[in-house]
Amino acid sequence: MTAAKRLGKQTVKFQNPPSILATASIVGKKEGEGPLKHYYDQIIEDGFWGEKTWEKAETKLLRETIMTAVTKADLSIKDIQYILSGDLLNQCIASSYGIRDMGVPFFGLYGACSTMAESLSLASILIDGGFADYVVAATSSHFCSAERQFRFPLEYGGQRPPTSQWTVTGSGAVVLSSKGNGPYITHITTGKIVDLGIKDANNMGAAMAPAAVDTIFTHFEDTGFDPDYYDLIITGDLAYYGKEIAQDMLQRKGCDISKIFTDCGIEIFDKEKQDTHAGGSGCGCSAVVLAGYLYHELTKGNLNKILFVATGALMSPTSSQQGESIPGIAHAVTIQNAME
Amino acid sequence: MTAAKRLGKQTVKFQNPPSILATASIVGKKEGEGPLKHYYDQIIEDGFWGEKTWEKAETKLLRETIMTAVTKADLSIKDIQYILSGDLLNQCIASSYGIRDMGVPFFGLYGACSTMAESLSLASILIDGGFADYVVAATSSHFCSAERQFRFPLEYGGQRPPTSQWTVTGSGAVVLSSKGNGPYITHITTGKIVDLGIKDANNMGAAMAPAAVDTIFTHFEDTGFDPDYYDLIITGDLAYYGKEIAQDMLQRKGCDISKIFTDCGIEIFDKEKQDTHAGGSGCGCSAVVLAGYLYHELTKGNLNKILFVATGALMSPTSSQQGESIPGIAHAVTIQNAME
Repeated sequence: MTAAKRLGKQTVKFQNPPSILATASIVGKKEGEGPLKHYYDQIIEDGFWGEKTWEKAETKLLRETIMTAVTKADLSIKDIQYILSGDLLNQCIASSYGIRDMGVPFFGLYGACSTMAESLSLASILIDGGFADYVVAATSSHFCSAERQFRFPLEYGGQRPPTSQWTVTGSGAVVLSSKGNGPYITHITTGKIVDLGIKDANNMGAAMAPAAVDTIFTHFEDTGFDPDYYDLIITGDLAYYGKEIAQDMLQRKGCDISKIFTDCGIEIFDKEKQDTHAGGSGCGCSAVVLAGYLYHELTKGNLNKILFVATGALMSPTSSQQGESIPGIAHAVTIQNAME
Repeated sequence: MTAAKRLGKQTVKFQNPPSILATASIVGKKEGEGPLKHYYDQIIEDGFWGEKTWEKAETKLLRETIMTAVTKADLSIKDIQYILSGDLLNQCIASSYGIRDMGVPFFGLYGACSTMAESLSLASILIDGGFADYVVAATSSHFCSAERQFRFPLEYGGQRPPTSQWTVTGSGAVVLSSKGNGPYITHITTGKIVDLGIKDANNMGAAMAPAAVDTIFTHFEDTGFDPDYYDLIITGDLAYYGKEIAQDMLQRKGCDISKIFTDCGIEIFDKEKQDTHAGGSGCGCSAVVLAGYLYHELTKGNLNKILFVATGALMSPTSSQQGESIPGIAHAVTIQNAME
């Protein structure tokens, strides 16, 4: 029964590829000054966005982004049959409070910064399997809420090592449907957890790179595609250090993706002009790069086939304090203008 | 395309109902002294279970429970195509670290105490839709790790109000398959978030009851079933206060389920002999009641049709400190010995 849909160990090829009907992205001021500034729907000038706390601002970011995406898809929120979302905050409160008043069946996810690919994967499964016609996949992150939760109070002003990444303030949402004219989600390769023992929470790129390598390599094994198949392979937020590690590890396995490989954490900020050290990170990073830049390039035909590989570091401050290493995960999603 | 599978607003009727191949449950000492003690696979005598921290003990609980369930299903972990799991710990570390070494594609979930029903729902979708043949749905909680994360350090010895519930130490896992002879998952009703403004984190039953009511009522609307259809309707962990509220709210809506209605948080502890105030709670509560007691009664034919409704409170300590109310969610899963 399942043979036709499953490819190899970890990949699904959709028989009824879901179409992206619309996307939306709302970002913070710093992101709005970056090289992708023309692709976002809205840039907020102030991290609080009229709210009393950063957590409430992130909640509003997610809510407004979802509503914008639904409106751009010419739908009402009542048309949406499921929302899949998660975020970095403890107990994923940006998602829960953000969608609280929408009245839509909700599957809460936790995939750290892999969440955009996780939510897209499960949303695609709901549509391909005939369980729904309209599904929203979303996520968010916020520099200020993440810093104080995962690292130090902002007021402390701790110094950041060169390998540290800058959590993106932003939310991205994608409306998927059984109808529509593409771009389509045609394949997903669901990641397994990979942990090679990195313990430095200021070097997340290195912690996540082996998971990205595992998923990308498996994707090619499962599908039989060559790297040449894609116009672009873009990882979630390995940023500069992690991207180099991933590229090198793949090269050693005989898989050269260097000509078409970049990372959302690299694309989102200007290395010279914006002081973000190793690059961007956070669930919102890959979400806004996809919902803004990548979706635009796909619809314009400048890109036709991309492999979107959001990567997550599944540790917590508690696990780090207890001496644990950082498990990584990466989920890959093939997005194409053609149905296959 | 989707008409045949979707019933009403929030319900899916499976065309190829997944079968439960096996379940496993491992619990703590207090749970092992409760009325359901004969149904668990293992009772651990010590909350640390040989580990240095409670978080690591919870991680081990989840890992050993999944491995036990897979073994009981006569499978190897390599046969499992997806694991879906989440827990209450910040960043869901019990799940991530628990399955880290299994090498299985992983979808991390966050549904608070609704996680067992959420993971069963998505696992069933994967199987019914033909995306997988063997999927594990799991979750865990631990009294000590939850208390210090959500409330106070245990050493503080804070007094507990009568409405407070006792987080269950335990993990439950279910192996679902496209093969097998039942019991079957035949329907799911995916909940939307409901928040009627309860702010008391020591009265979670009251916060979650409206969500349970919404999902149960919608389930009957969507399916056309009467409450009589079921041998048992069992909510996740409303416990004594929340169960009364839910029953009363449903009665006012003209839906009398009182004759067949109970709650996992009520069943798991002995009200007279075990001092747990309002009853049990935590992701592990509904998970071990399902994987232990309910699965046993289904396979023996003492129960033939049950509606399992795990309920979650989607707040965090941060949202409570910022004055927010507690959003609730409830997901319902129909489990039957017959395929329909």
